[in-house]
Amino acid sequence: MNQVSTRELARWLDATLQPQRFRDYCPNGLQVEGTDTITHIITGVTASHELIEAAVAKKADAILVHHGWFWKNEDPCIRGPKRARLALALSHGLNLYAYHLPLDAHPTLGNNAQLARVLGFEPLRGDAGQALTCGPDDLVWLGTPGVPATLQDLGTHICNALHRQPLVVGNPQQKLERIAWCTGAAQGMIEAATAAGAQAYVTGEASEQTYHWARETGTGFIAAGHHATERYGIQALGQAVAREFGIEVEFVDIDNPI
Amino acid sequence: MNQVSTRELARWLDATLQPQRFRDYCPNGLQVEGTDTITHIITGVTASHELIEAAVAKKADAILVHHGWFWKNEDPCIRGPKRARLALALSHGLNLYAYHLPLDAHPTLGNNAQLARVLGFEPLRGDAGQALTCGPDDLVWLGTPGVPATLQDLGTHICNALHRQPLVVGNPQQKLERIAWCTGAAQGMIEAATAAGAQAYVTGEASEQTYHWARETGTGFIAAGHHATERYGIQALGQAVAREFGIEVEFVDIDNPI
Amino acid sequence: MNQVSTRELARWLDATLQPQRFRDYCPNGLQVEGTDTITHIITGVTASHELIEAAVAKKADAILVHHGWFWKNEDPCIRGPKRARLALALSHGLNLYAYHLPLDAHPTLGNNAQLARVLGFEPLRGDAGQALTCGPDDLVWLGTPGVPATLQDLGTHICNALHRQPLVVGNPQQKLERIAWCTGAAQGMIEAATAAGAQAYVTGEASEQTYHWARETGTGFIAAGHHATERYGIQALGQAVAREFGIEVEFVDIDNPI
Amino acid sequence: MNQVSTRELARWLDATLQPQRFRDYCPNGLQVEGTDTITHIITGVTASHELIEAAVAKKADAILVHHGWFWKNEDPCIRGPKRARLALALSHGLNLYAYHLPLDAHPTLGNNAQLARVLGFEPLRGDAGQALTCGPDDLVWLGTPGVPATLQDLGTHICNALHRQPLVVGNPQQKLERIAWCTGAAQGMIEAATAAGAQAYVTGEASEQTYHWARETGTGFIAAGHHATERYGIQALGQAVAREFGIEVEFVDIDNPI
Amino acid sequence: MNQVSTRELARWLDATLQPQRFRDYCPNGLQVEGTDTITHIITGVTASHELIEAAVAKKADAILVHHGWFWKNEDPCIRGPKRARLALALSHGLNLYAYHLPLDAHPTLGNNAQLARVLGFEPLRGDAGQALTCGPDDLVWLGTPGVPATLQDLGTHICNALHRQPLVVGNPQQKLERIAWCTGAAQGMIEAATAAGAQAYVTGEASEQTYHWARETGTGFIAAGHHATERYGIQALGQAVAREFGIEVEFVDIDNPI
Amino acid sequence: MNQVSTRELARWLDATLQPQRFRDYCPNGLQVEGTDTITHIITGVTASHELIEAAVAKKADAILVHHGWFWKNEDPCIRGPKRARLALALSHGLNLYAYHLPLDAHPTLGNNAQLARVLGFEPLRGDAGQALTCGPDDLVWLGTPGVPATLQDLGTHICNALHRQPLVVGNPQQKLERIAWCTGAAQGMIEAATAAGAQAYVTGEASEQTYHWARETGTGFIAAGHHATERYGIQALGQAVAREFGIEVEFVDIDNPI
Repeated sequence: MNQVSTRELARWLDATLQPQRFRDYCPNGLQVEGTDTITHIITGVTASHELIEAAVAKKADAILVHHGWFWKNEDPCIRGPKRARLALALSHGLNLYAYHLPLDAHPTLGNNAQLARVLGFEPLRGDAGQALTCGPDDLVWLGTPGVPATLQDLGTHICNALHRQPLVVGNPQQKLERIAWCTGAAQGMIEAATAAGAQAYVTGEASEQTYHWARETGTGFIAAGHHATERYGIQALGQAVAREFGIEVEFVDIDNPI
Repeated sequence: MNQVSTRELARWLDATLQPQRFRDYCPNGLQVEGTDTITHIITGVTASHELIEAAVAKKADAILVHHGWFWKNEDPCIRGPKRARLALALSHGLNLYAYHLPLDAHPTLGNNAQLARVLGFEPLRGDAGQALTCGPDDLVWLGTPGVPATLQDLGTHICNALHRQPLVVGNPQQKLERIAWCTGAAQGMIEAATAAGAQAYVTGEASEQTYHWARETGTGFIAAGHHATERYGIQALGQAVAREFGIEVEFVDIDNPI
Repeated sequence: MNQVSTRELARWLDATLQPQRFRDYCPNGLQVEGTDTITHIITGVTASHELIEAAVAKKADAILVHHGWFWKNEDPCIRGPKRARLALALSHGLNLYAYHLPLDAHPTLGNNAQLARVLGFEPLRGDAGQALTCGPDDLVWLGTPGVPATLQDLGTHICNALHRQPLVVGNPQQKLERIAWCTGAAQGMIEAATAAGAQAYVTGEASEQTYHWARETGTGFIAAGHHATERYGIQALGQAVAREFGIEVEFVDIDNPI
Repeated sequence: MNQVSTRELARWLDATLQPQRFRDYCPNGLQVEGTDTITHIITGVTASHELIEAAVAKKADAILVHHGWFWKNEDPCIRGPKRARLALALSHGLNLYAYHLPLDAHPTLGNNAQLARVLGFEPLRGDAGQALTCGPDDLVWLGTPGVPATLQDLGTHICNALHRQPLVVGNPQQKLERIAWCTGAAQGMIEAATAAGAQAYVTGEASEQTYHWARETGTGFIAAGHHATERYGIQALGQAVAREFGIEVEFVDIDNPI
Repeated sequence: MNQVSTRELARWLDATLQPQRFRDYCPNGLQVEGTDTITHIITGVTASHELIEAAVAKKADAILVHHGWFWKNEDPCIRGPKRARLALALSHGLNLYAYHLPLDAHPTLGNNAQLARVLGFEPLRGDAGQALTCGPDDLVWLGTPGVPATLQDLGTHICNALHRQPLVVGNPQQKLERIAWCTGAAQGMIEAATAAGAQAYVTGEASEQTYHWARETGTGFIAAGHHATERYGIQALGQAVAREFGIEVEFVDIDNPI
Repeated sequence: MNQVSTRELARWLDATLQPQRFRDYCPNGLQVEGTDTITHIITGVTASHELIEAAVAKKADAILVHHGWFWKNEDPCIRGPKRARLALALSHGLNLYAYHLPLDAHPTLGNNAQLARVLGFEPLRGDAGQALTCGPDDLVWLGTPGVPATLQDLGTHICNALHRQPLVVGNPQQKLERIAWCTGAAQGMIEAATAAGAQAYVTGEASEQTYHWARETGTGFIAAGHHATERYGIQALGQAVAREFGIEVEFVDIDNPI
């Protein structure tokens, strides 16, 4: 059975995702140290208690997620659900690797790139082939919607592809030639999307003021679910790890309606 | 026809809501100056373009809202929808009064107090009759749910009372004796609600991590809509203004699915 | 009649003045959006009410200034004179473009470069022809005074050239071979000028402590007026706009004794 | 010959001026330690080199000023004029006491109170006899102008009383019933003065934007000199010291045109 | 066998030590949650791995320390020794309570009060019996040294009482009538001690610059060990817990030469 | 007799040590200005009163040190020992040059480089010959210990070489192949040393928590004295100055047990 050392995997993930390029809300990398070698990894969107239970049940020795722990301004004490998660992980020697913004932004493995693949969006690309982006830290991607012709069509397409009813704001008949998207809780970046000329913006969550911005600028807005839009980057990263090290990597989808 | 001077109304609102007691994300008070005297006020949740259009159509000379303008870190330039809102308001001499956190927190007129009234919650009260609260700036209220016996019942009750399908997370059969609530985008305060012993927490919006916290602590969670939970404080404030000054005050509900 | 689109002019001004290179006290660029196309621009030092009235009287559709609006720590509310300026500009569809530090610093169009031209100062230049500077953000220019031989001569020359009696501190008979200058309220930068070996420093305003620094270091000091020293960059920029787009650009001098 | 210990004088000055009540731009109190006992004090507006020379010539052992040393963000190194001042003071065992905002604000000895006395202004007073103020840290005083009937009259009166031609902005014929004043470089507080209903505002310095604010709000503005308006508080404080300790206290006026 | 609930003990400790009065470098209170009830507590200076091992060996269910975990600016990830400590504590259901500054400062149980008891220092007291203090957060105590007459005597006395050779700086023959002390790494507070008139200052650690300050001000300085000076507060607190709840509390001294 | 101008020496020192590359806790360079030309320099670790006395006794005109004055958050007032040091230096026209982090880090003259030379450590070097480092600002050097085979041997060797009994923590028999070092109060950087794979870490001072980190990670730790480890960089720098300018440079060792 193949294996990789905990440190070697951390080095490869850091080299691949380059966390030093981001100012993030959490540490990226090996957040909790477990066994020294790894043969079986569970990937998931969030390092929730249920995901750790799944990893224990499957006798994994590492978890690789998009949403890890130790967020900025979080109480550092180990109590309540934080204690339960940590005690379970430590008692089974699980390693926890987490990559947040670096996994949103990666040009091929990242959440934005993978959501485009799943939904058939065609990213606009610069002369060097790089995706054209906008917004803070260049987190918002720009492109064409592929087949769907109108905002209503795009809503239906997303509903079918992500198996979730999205919130759609705007004129259903609006023709879409240029759209923008950013996975997760990126509703605030609709301003950047509008400024970059997008006719519609797709993200995960929505806030009260997003609705007014969308209507007053005539920008179509689709909130397709934080979890639903961020299931794909971590799967792609897991497959890359499996290819690189020949170890077992398995995605566990703990559903989340938000 | 009765009237009040713009300055006098600002003084009365400030004396009533005491904005100097809050560190807020926006200025509270007279945000945009219009005519010198006021005879007809439109109240609303958010100073959106549509609300200003309604005020113009109704020949009002002031708008009084919960969500005004000039939020922290906002681009100060007057462009796009911000320009359109402002140009419309200025060209019709509209005064814009906005109160954010002070209107959430007011003991009788505030959003939390009014939502309790609408939903039949019974606030816990201290020896001096004051509502017992928790969380940052004491923004979360504690109490009993009134009639509803279980989380499922509470969800149904809220759906009927607010005319909106809420997001409900948790065990539907959980008996509820002590709950907590805070209107708007207060999902992050579920931690304070749990620490204060609430069996369920009601707020407006939801984030991805709220779901996991609710499930891992066994706290019921209901997101009933930002707009839907914040429609009541501004109406109560408007009625108080009408009583005080004998002028016409009218609530305009610009619906918002979020 | 020639015209340029509002966005195209913003792009050209940003490309010319490169505001992203400065950490400024205000936003640089299109501060207030008006009509979509521009045929007639009024330039001025400060976007005062009087300047806007002049632009309205002259049927201009844009104003281009050195001192715009929305200064750091300014109250964001739209009241009093701020409301009056904004209401006048918005009601006539005026665009407001403002460039602060980028216009001070531009190598040929900037206030320092243009004041040198008007007063006959010869900037010191490096091997690549660039002006040699000192002080925070390299805002202070160094050079020779041209013809004037003494501090008294320089004061007289400035009085004649700028039509204003400057405040002159120091030994009138001091011979001047190396001087420094920075337009506007740059009196605090006299320390950098002294450290760079300047025998006299010319700026716009003066503060109580400037007087003591000048006397105790033996540095000649001339405060020639904030407005008086900053009239020239905006004119040069306006002429460049006129040349580039063939539209009408007119400078309006609203005098200011300070 | 009477004397007071250096520490005892520091204690009395601190008890009188209460520097702990202010967030200031410099340390208040004994800034430089000299001899242990004090028999002869020189007071002045600013601890300039010339003032120290005067103190040495008069064989004083302490200097008491409004503008001392060690301002916020100042380079801490001891070089140039800072070195010269300090070397001179230390070599003669001079003690340096400095009080900045506490001396502006003192109800009877302070610069605002003393300027009112010199110019005949009548401060508005509250029920407890305290001066009514406005602006940051309540530094601006409100009152009536005494005899002068118009802005022009007030300018002439100030010229005669302070022996300096002030800068006067506004309508010369404006009748004045309510004015505001704050000594020194308090031009930015004209906004607070306007908001408090002052028809004219008197301070020491002026900035470019002050001119526009004054004109656009119709507030009369008089810049009477930073030094000229701040000569009186330190004299009053010196007389109080002389009365308290029976030691020699002498004011030396180093003139400053700013 | 007596027991106390984990929450009840946290409430009593918080009521006793009042952590909300301090701005500390770590969270104070229940830092790591273990079993719900507590029958046996180990106290110690620092929650080191060795202390946790001792608690496990003694079948304790809680640890109460002065130096806990989660210090400001610490890497939040759970790796290396931090992981080992936490895994050991969690796997045995240990509760970790930590109180830092509140335990230094407590008037009777605190480190300063207890070190005074052990060394025979007599604290100076105010009219209400409270200890007279100085320095940031009033952390430094003032008093008389009890029996020792000179700095050398005090050094010898401390050596005998704390079983450790202290570092002594100063004139051995200096008579001591007024001293100051603060346990732990409080060497920087020697400046406050000097300003308060102390002839000698006793603390735990020493820094290079402390030596010069002590010599140049003539203040005697004794560094008696961080651990050695902070062994007593936690013991007194443990005894108070034992008295209050009748449970077993045992002090384990993991020696530390620093 | 050779001499150098004060400014020229400052320029050469800045060019050599490149202080602009560091964010330091004090200003680096000419901290106190004295005579214009320099013929005789005293070097020392710290600009203490005793060092200044030595410079005066030796008729030097400059002092060059590692620990100068004006540390971050220091009270800027000139009182007590600060006054005494400054008065002595100013009254004898002494120039004070200080370089802190730039002198720790210099590749050949710096404290780390020189301590390696004195103790026979062999720095690890990269392809370009540069020392391999770790920790904040790359201040910690990595290398092999030279001759000593075990931690105990290294302790004995350091005792003999630096004439001081170091504090040694760890297993005396641990074989050492890779060590790390940083002079002065760098005990907090032991974490970076451990992460970089060092078996032992040598620095100047020690803190309570260093002891636990060393033991729990199995990293040997040696605190060899702040002063004792930082005597060498300033001597090397002084010799470089002597070579460059042909002036007299003399090291004065004011011993310090810390």
